[in-house]
Amino acid sequence: CPCPLPSGDTALSRLVRRLLSARRSLDLCLFSFSCPQLARAVHLLHRRGVRVRLVTDAQYMGLHGSQIGRLRHAGIQVRHDQHSGYMHHKFAIVDQRMLITGSLNWTAQAIQSNRENVLVVEDAEYVKAFQDEFERIWEEYNPANYIFFP
Amino acid sequence: CPCPLPSGDTALSRLVRRLLSARRSLDLCLFSFSCPQLARAVHLLHRRGVRVRLVTDAQYMGLHGSQIGRLRHAGIQVRHDQHSGYMHHKFAIVDQRMLITGSLNWTAQAIQSNRENVLVVEDAEYVKAFQDEFERIWEEYNPANYIFFP
Repeated sequence: CPCPLPSGDTALSRLVRRLLSARRSLDLCLFSFSCPQLARAVHLLHRRGVRVRLVTDAQYMGLHGSQIGRLRHAGIQVRHDQHSGYMHHKFAIVDQRMLITGSLNWTAQAIQSNRENVLVVEDAEYVKAFQDEFERIWEEYNPANYIFFP
Repeated sequence: CPCPLPSGDTALSRLVRRLLSARRSLDLCLFSFSCPQLARAVHLLHRRGVRVRLVTDAQYMGLHGSQIGRLRHAGIQVRHDQHSGYMHHKFAIVDQRMLITGSLNWTAQAIQSNRENVLVVEDAEYVKAFQDEFERIWEEYNPANYIFFP
């Protein structure tokens, strides 16, 4: 991958460092995922043997620049909704102990041009609420439940 | 306004109740604001004498269904960016002590159809970080700083 991991003390490099601290699992619930640097970090974790699971939005996963196809090709498990509404979450959970969530979609445009917030929370109560939501969505979007010809 | 406040124990009614607990101030930083029930709650607080300040995104404030014009007409102070990037935050701060933030844009579509999260945080450290960001944006978007003919 020609895209280097970000260096220095930018918001993006701090986000990448938090992700790369994962040792066992990374659960991602992302409306939109087109930022190459963040995809590279996720790919790297997968290669290190961290269990990566990714849930995304069906309408946005096929947009130009989406990294979802590349991550699937690398062997990362991806599931998506099959509804007309958006799967609009944008959070990550590192090792079931650190929640990273906010307004930021994982796109280059958002990182470079927008006013955004990202919260990093290790309080168990908040982490559990998001982990529970992740597990619900992960099961709900199991391909075994897809209805192609309703 | 013909639109009743929501009742019962829905996510929307819980959000409205948190907002209506404001006694002194409500600071809003909202990418998109088209939900009539939430606009009604904000309008009600303004009429009760709560100091409401609203920051929004210049590109989205004029979209169909936006409540920004109506709230301005009611006398609520509104400021907006003048950049090509989005003012993509979606948070509220009640009485400088309760932060409400997440993935949820304040639109009927998001509330009815999307998978979203809303965090309610009273931890002073988090509230201060968002309050500081609000004050920065409020000053940066002061109309005295608008450049109409750069």
